[in-house]
Amino acid sequence: MAFNSKKTYGERIENFTNIAARELLTLMERKKTNLSLALDVNTKREFLEIADKVGPYICLLKTHIDILVDFDQDFIEQLKKLQNKHDFMIFEDRKFADIGNTVKHQYSKGIYKIAEWANITNAHPLPGDGIVSGLKEVGLPLGRGLLLLAEMSSKGSLATGAYTEAAVEMARRHRDFVIGFIAGRKLVSNENEDFIVMSPGVGLDSSKDGLGQQYRTPRNVILESNSDIIIVGRGIYESGKDVIEEALRYKNAGWNAYLERLMN
Amino acid sequence: MAFNSKKTYGERIENFTNIAARELLTLMERKKTNLSLALDVNTKREFLEIADKVGPYICLLKTHIDILVDFDQDFIEQLKKLQNKHDFMIFEDRKFADIGNTVKHQYSKGIYKIAEWANITNAHPLPGDGIVSGLKEVGLPLGRGLLLLAEMSSKGSLATGAYTEAAVEMARRHRDFVIGFIAGRKLVSNENEDFIVMSPGVGLDSSKDGLGQQYRTPRNVILESNSDIIIVGRGIYESGKDVIEEALRYKNAGWNAYLERLMN
Repeated sequence: MAFNSKKTYGERIENFTNIAARELLTLMERKKTNLSLALDVNTKREFLEIADKVGPYICLLKTHIDILVDFDQDFIEQLKKLQNKHDFMIFEDRKFADIGNTVKHQYSKGIYKIAEWANITNAHPLPGDGIVSGLKEVGLPLGRGLLLLAEMSSKGSLATGAYTEAAVEMARRHRDFVIGFIAGRKLVSNENEDFIVMSPGVGLDSSKDGLGQQYRTPRNVILESNSDIIIVGRGIYESGKDVIEEALRYKNAGWNAYLERLMN
Repeated sequence: MAFNSKKTYGERIENFTNIAARELLTLMERKKTNLSLALDVNTKREFLEIADKVGPYICLLKTHIDILVDFDQDFIEQLKKLQNKHDFMIFEDRKFADIGNTVKHQYSKGIYKIAEWANITNAHPLPGDGIVSGLKEVGLPLGRGLLLLAEMSSKGSLATGAYTEAAVEMARRHRDFVIGFIAGRKLVSNENEDFIVMSPGVGLDSSKDGLGQQYRTPRNVILESNSDIIIVGRGIYESGKDVIEEALRYKNAGWNAYLERLMN
C-alpha cells in the first residue's frame, strides 16, 4: 500500500467521507496550492482588500472573526463573494475550548454564527470528547469539518507527548467529523488512516515574534514533517511587503516542497 | 501561620496585589456570597431578566458573550446598570486559547471588546506563557484579573496531572495578573501563596448532562475541596424553576459550606 504522504492530494480524497475534507483536497489539487492565509487584521476594509489580492493563491482563508472591530452581516456577504470569485474555503480559527453544551451555542449562535459560513473550524481536545460531540451536532449536518489542535507552535506549549496522542485518539473516535489536525507534523504512521495536517507558525524570513510565536519554513513543514497545509500570516501581509509577491512566494515554496515529497 | 483556607475572604485581601482580586474578595465579604451565576442564554431579554433577579445573591456574573444572538452596545450598557444596581463583578468565560499576539486582539478588539467591561476573564495555559503575557498587556493597565483553567469538570478532560501542575507554575510566574484558577479544588498547599479557586460543574439536583458535563455539590467543592467560588448555571435557571428561590438555595449552600470550613 502506498504511503499517504506519497499520494497526491487528489488521490487522498477517497480516504475521507467528510464533505469539507473532500472539497478541500479537490480544491488543492485543482488550484495547485497548499497555502492557507492567516488573515489577522482589525478592519473589514483591510481584510477584504488583502483577501481579494491573495485569494488566487490560497486553498484556505483562515479567519479570527472576533478581532474585526467593524464586523457586520455585510462582511459575511462580501467574504462569500470573494470566496466564489477566487475559489477558496474558509477556516475560522476559533479554537473552541469549552464543554459540549457551550461550544454548540458558540458555534451556531451569537453574532457570528460561525457554522453558517466557515467550512472548517477547530477545537482543543482538552475538555474531552464532549467538545467534539457538541460541535458535530451542529456542523456535520451542514457539511462542515473540524480540526483538533494536537500541537501548538508557541513557546512552552503544553500540547505535547501524551496530550498530542490523546488528540489523535479523539480524532479516531470521530472520523466522520474530525478531518485532521493543527500540528507541526504528520502524527499517524498507520497508512490505513489519513488526516489532513495544517501547520501554523510558518515563515520564510523571521524565526519568532515578541510573544512566544516560533517560525519554521514551508520546506521544514511539508517535506520534512509531512504536513499538508502551510498557514502563513504576517509573513505575507506585514507592512512594507508586496502581498501578491509574498503570497506567490509562499505558494510556490509550499507546492514545490509537496512535489519534492511526492518524488522522494 | 494560619492556613489560607481557614481565613475569611476579607482576611485574604492582603494576599493579593491585583485590583480585581482585591475587589472580588471585598465584595464577597460584604455581600456574604461565594456564588457565581453562569448565565448561558441566547437573548438579551432573557439574560437581563435573570441577571436582575439573581443579581442580589451573587458575587460574580459569568458570561459567554458570544452566544447572545442580539448582542449590541446597548446590552453592555444594560449590563453595567445591573452591575451597579446589584453590586456584582463580571467574568467573561472566554477560555482564551491562542498565541499571545492573537489573544491580545481578541481581548481588546472585535465587536465585544471584552477587556472594557469584564473585570475577570480566563485562559487555558495550553499555548505557553505567551498567552498570559499577551492578555496582561491589555488587562493589567485596566485593573483586570485572569484565571487559568487548571482543570475542567467535563468527562475525559485532559487538564490533569502534569498539565494542572504546569498551570500552577504559570500562575506563579504572573502573580500580578493571574488571580487564581478554574479548578475543582484548591491546588496549592504552600500557605505563603494564595489563589482564588472557582469551580464550575456545581449542581444540587443532577449529576450530569448529555454532553459530558459532570456535577458536584457546593459542600463537595467548598468544604471538602477548599475551592472559593461555586459556579452554578442551569441548576438555577432551567425551565420550571423559581430562579430567585434557586439562587438563594445555592447562595446559602455555598456560604454555609464556607462557614463550616472556617470553623473546622
